[in-house]
Amino acid sequence: MDHEVEEMLAPLRVAVKEQGDIVKKLKEDKAPDIDIQKAVSELKHRKKTLEDKELELGAKDNIDRGKMEDLLKQKFFYDQSFSIYGGVNGLYDFGPMGCAVKANILQTWRNFFVLEEQMLEVDCSMLTPEPVLVASGHVERFQDYMVKDLKNGDCYRADHLIEATFEKMLTDKKVDADTKTEIRNLMPLIDGMSKEDMGKTIVKYNMKSPLTNNDLSEPMEFNLMFSTAIGPTGHIKGFLRPETAQGIFVNFKRLLNFNQGKLPFAAAQIGNAFRNEISPRSGLLRVREFTMAEIEHFCDPNQKDHPKFSNVADLDVVLYSACNQMDGKSPQVWKLGEAVKQKLIANETLGYFMGRIQMFMLKCGIDRKKLRFRQHMSNEMAHYACDCWDAECKTTYGWVECVGCADRSCYDLNQHSKATGTKLVAEKKLQEPKEVDVVECTSNKGSLGKVFKKDAKAIGEYLAALSVEDCDRIEKELSTNGESQITVGTQTFTLKSDMVTIKRYTKKVHVEEIVPSVIEPSFGVGRVMYSVFEHNFKIREGDEQRSFLSLPAIIAPYKCSVLPLSNKDSFVPFVQELSKALTFNDISHRVDDSSGSIGKRYARTDAIAIPYGVTIDFDSLNAPHTATLRERDSMKQIRAPLEEIPLIVKALSIGQRTWEDVLNNYPLFEQQEATKEK
Amino acid sequence: MDHEVEEMLAPLRVAVKEQGDIVKKLKEDKAPDIDIQKAVSELKHRKKTLEDKELELGAKDNIDRGKMEDLLKQKFFYDQSFSIYGGVNGLYDFGPMGCAVKANILQTWRNFFVLEEQMLEVDCSMLTPEPVLVASGHVERFQDYMVKDLKNGDCYRADHLIEATFEKMLTDKKVDADTKTEIRNLMPLIDGMSKEDMGKTIVKYNMKSPLTNNDLSEPMEFNLMFSTAIGPTGHIKGFLRPETAQGIFVNFKRLLNFNQGKLPFAAAQIGNAFRNEISPRSGLLRVREFTMAEIEHFCDPNQKDHPKFSNVADLDVVLYSACNQMDGKSPQVWKLGEAVKQKLIANETLGYFMGRIQMFMLKCGIDRKKLRFRQHMSNEMAHYACDCWDAECKTTYGWVECVGCADRSCYDLNQHSKATGTKLVAEKKLQEPKEVDVVECTSNKGSLGKVFKKDAKAIGEYLAALSVEDCDRIEKELSTNGESQITVGTQTFTLKSDMVTIKRYTKKVHVEEIVPSVIEPSFGVGRVMYSVFEHNFKIREGDEQRSFLSLPAIIAPYKCSVLPLSNKDSFVPFVQELSKALTFNDISHRVDDSSGSIGKRYARTDAIAIPYGVTIDFDSLNAPHTATLRERDSMKQIRAPLEEIPLIVKALSIGQRTWEDVLNNYPLFEQQEATKEK
Repeated sequence: MDHEVEEMLAPLRVAVKEQGDIVKKLKEDKAPDIDIQKAVSELKHRKKTLEDKELELGAKDNIDRGKMEDLLKQKFFYDQSFSIYGGVNGLYDFGPMGCAVKANILQTWRNFFVLEEQMLEVDCSMLTPEPVLVASGHVERFQDYMVKDLKNGDCYRADHLIEATFEKMLTDKKVDADTKTEIRNLMPLIDGMSKEDMGKTIVKYNMKSPLTNNDLSEPMEFNLMFSTAIGPTGHIKGFLRPETAQGIFVNFKRLLNFNQGKLPFAAAQIGNAFRNEISPRSGLLRVREFTMAEIEHFCDPNQKDHPKFSNVADLDVVLYSACNQMDGKSPQVWKLGEAVKQKLIANETLGYFMGRIQMFMLKCGIDRKKLRFRQHMSNEMAHYACDCWDAECKTTYGWVECVGCADRSCYDLNQHSKATGTKLVAEKKLQEPKEVDVVECTSNKGSLGKVFKKDAKAIGEYLAALSVEDCDRIEKELSTNGESQITVGTQTFTLKSDMVTIKRYTKKVHVEEIVPSVIEPSFGVGRVMYSVFEHNFKIREGDEQRSFLSLPAIIAPYKCSVLPLSNKDSFVPFVQELSKALTFNDISHRVDDSSGSIGKRYARTDAIAIPYGVTIDFDSLNAPHTATLRERDSMKQIRAPLEEIPLIVKALSIGQRTWEDVLNNYPLFEQQEATKEK
Repeated sequence: MDHEVEEMLAPLRVAVKEQGDIVKKLKEDKAPDIDIQKAVSELKHRKKTLEDKELELGAKDNIDRGKMEDLLKQKFFYDQSFSIYGGVNGLYDFGPMGCAVKANILQTWRNFFVLEEQMLEVDCSMLTPEPVLVASGHVERFQDYMVKDLKNGDCYRADHLIEATFEKMLTDKKVDADTKTEIRNLMPLIDGMSKEDMGKTIVKYNMKSPLTNNDLSEPMEFNLMFSTAIGPTGHIKGFLRPETAQGIFVNFKRLLNFNQGKLPFAAAQIGNAFRNEISPRSGLLRVREFTMAEIEHFCDPNQKDHPKFSNVADLDVVLYSACNQMDGKSPQVWKLGEAVKQKLIANETLGYFMGRIQMFMLKCGIDRKKLRFRQHMSNEMAHYACDCWDAECKTTYGWVECVGCADRSCYDLNQHSKATGTKLVAEKKLQEPKEVDVVECTSNKGSLGKVFKKDAKAIGEYLAALSVEDCDRIEKELSTNGESQITVGTQTFTLKSDMVTIKRYTKKVHVEEIVPSVIEPSFGVGRVMYSVFEHNFKIREGDEQRSFLSLPAIIAPYKCSVLPLSNKDSFVPFVQELSKALTFNDISHRVDDSSGSIGKRYARTDAIAIPYGVTIDFDSLNAPHTATLRERDSMKQIRAPLEEIPLIVKALSIGQRTWEDVLNNYPLFEQQEATKEK
């Protein structure tokens, strides 16, 4: 079977490799950018064809997405926001079950990363003034091209529209063969098209608005950030943050100070971010408002080893390296330690976080077989990043980027530093103190004041902050001409020799200033959540109607259900007592005392992923009081003393005890299951 | 002393009562609105004078706010956002300590309300399309008046500006006595001024822009919501939600369905909301972006009793009733049960939540003596609310509303229902089934289809949903004229007798539809947090420099510090071992192995509110290994076996054990404290 699949993929792999080699060659030869770009576009196209084929051949493993969405909607895990008002695309509300799953994922994340690694968690404003996002590059680069239907104003992403139109033309019998060849040659280039190229293409092929056939506007830039005005004057232009990371960068000095000036340290933030997608789709995967959990690990650029790397070095990870992608090869299993040693992964810290990301994902219920790390190829990596790996999960939408893990070098701190004039640096102790030459310009306040009056102070400050070069120039001019001109703000002043003294001396320094590098693991919480849903959607064997979610207890919205066998009054005090004991132990649970057979109610609790169910039955009424405890996935039940049950469930749900262990220590209970689950 | 204070307040109390009586009389006499309004304004003014005097006389209890703010800033609990870019008013970032305190408050809230009461927690979109906020009333009413400096564009709240100008004029010697009397008469009326009144006042008294003395614009309405456009077309106008509540209301049907159709139930939401304040001030108390935690308890409007009310009936609460406010009296201590019995609090459910709110606030560290519930007077209550009590905390800014607790009746559900045409109702089982008359119009699909073609379906649906009155009319017209006209959408159609049949019959119904009432406890998380900080800010006796925060362990950012007595290498493995054991027990902690005397480091951990500190000292090195455990507020220390310490701290921090109990069970350790804390 696998052999058969490989045979079908082989020619596609060859096609990728051929093109990959062409790209490599062009780069080696330092060919013109435009040629490289065209070759890369074709490479991307061939890679996509390969991946599509792989997914198609693997589709038999796919879950029935429609059924899963029915379940999630029906049980209000999440649903479109403002539906009674017609709904808004790309906005979702999480109901009680989704909200609990999300809160559990976030709590797990906080314990796993923030607490375990002693990170500094912050909570920053979502409203962000424009200059911050100019510096970060978002105002300039965070955009797509769109075209408008000239009559009804509907908007489309220009690249999507061109691609869709081409695809349609290729299947159109009225389009002649020459044009089809032309189109086939153009398709791989769409990704790299400039605004002008797109405009020309739309005109040349007479493309129209897909639903109305109306004429289309020229392509125009559309920034993906939501803008608003802060304050009543309308002068402070602001955006809703497109990521949480910038809030950490602008607080770098405070955080470094909190950490007593020491590197390395990591800051973390959980919070919402916003992107005004042109046409949101794919459910939770591409939305306009979403929760991120981001870590910024600040370290010495020359010291990217990690003290705890040995804890993850033996982990097996699936790596889809840039090389493998260029060569049309499959992802490969590596030991993390080996991958770092071979320099496939740039450094230990990046590798350490990749290991931790994988451990976290598995803890949340991601299927190990549907998780891989894909390396960005040099052409898709942000220009400031040195290395970047995406943790991708396989879903019915294909491989989805859920977590990015990038070495952003010192780009962000440098940008904010340039924009504000504030030094964003750490002090690094030198191995040996060193002597440095210092040139200083000190001003004679008396004579400055006499001549420049109210401007004297600003001039004094300007002189104190002079660079070595400026000191040299002024010293030279004063000795030659007896005067020297300086420009402070917009004004020019003439200095005389009696006003300043240039001092030169050497100083022993013990520290140097460095701009830290940043390693950034960035989690898209909604995408992780959606993948967890897909990877845990199950249908009971032999009963197509009984779908359920096998979420791990740590993530499940409730840990336990409490079910009286019937609505007999004598069950009530036992149910209440148990519920109280569970609450006391902080175990979230749901009492289902509605009518309906016990089997139906088990099915209902399975559907909302409750891992354990306690049933109060007739035997519970007699001393010694006992109840049955059922596990969701195996549907096996045991019978245990009522007073022990809260502690058993607690131990199970925090992972201190396995179900196997419980099975071995309590008598199996079979009767109820056999007679009542139907 | 108290007697002296009361003597000074007595005349002010009399003045309030006099005016309160006037207001009551005017209302009884159904006097013109304008007269009542003026009298109410004067009442408010007198109340404010009384309260200001009370606060002034009580100011000796106040903390030094400047010192506290220094501490919070220095230790990065929170600070202004984007400071390196000059900062934005009304936006704050929470640093590691503030973020942890906030997360702990929210986790406590979730356990205390959501888990304990089995509420349905949701997480809804912040971006909200305009029609939702038109229906809720926010687009129309959520506004202030502002004036603009005509030259530099600075904006001011019109009421604040008028008040400030008047206050200045009253102390100005150049203003004559007659004008001063006039101003004194106008001041109580500012609150009730219309836009036109304000405009006239500004012109009459020649008011100018306070900083520049420039001319001012006319007052203009300014909506406090941040607006933005959703999607690329710009057609969907949206706002950032001004409260989280609306997200719950628009999901009412899904939530009712999730609760299997049963009332009562409560939904809850924690999330951010946004208000574009004209001139934010008072630190965390009035900000542009803030976290709320809201509960909407839906119940039968005729059944507002609460099954768990007896749990809170014996609680003592300080109530400042509307009556007491009108009469110039002080707040009074009540048993909650008595207050509900006397109808001072409208119903049990409202009373139950007030009790729970108080318990929660005390748990978070609010000072019982600085907490009261103030009832809204009828003139300040939103027009749809039946009763509303604010939990207020006393701070250096005066009494601050931290939690609102309102009976909103069925206002919100009705509004959204009207706006969308979606029924937002619950079914209530009737005690006895009852017979109701039903009139139905059924259409003959064949003949409708033949005549109306594609419109037939819409006409059929229209007829099926006809009201009794319309059925009557059509029946009458058909029998008289043989035809009847109906309007569907924008089109008019003529019905003939063969197209419809009007059926009349009686039906036995077992349920009736009701629009639930909503009781809403609404928490301003930042305000609670700020009050907790003020109520727990302390200065060590005899050392003005040593300020600290005595936060309860449940709220404290770290539960424990780990301090090696010096940087001796042999301490290191003990510190690491202990840190690991604490992490394993989910105890957030901070290792402080920096240089500095143990006393200095204790002071540093006190400042960030760490309740317990473990010191590894020379005795720790010898078997049996022990360490000292210090409590922050008393500074007392005990000595305990090292392996017991994580469990002792765990029990202390979740409130399972008291410090007194620990003191009684382990030997007191005195030496270190005496010699090293200085």
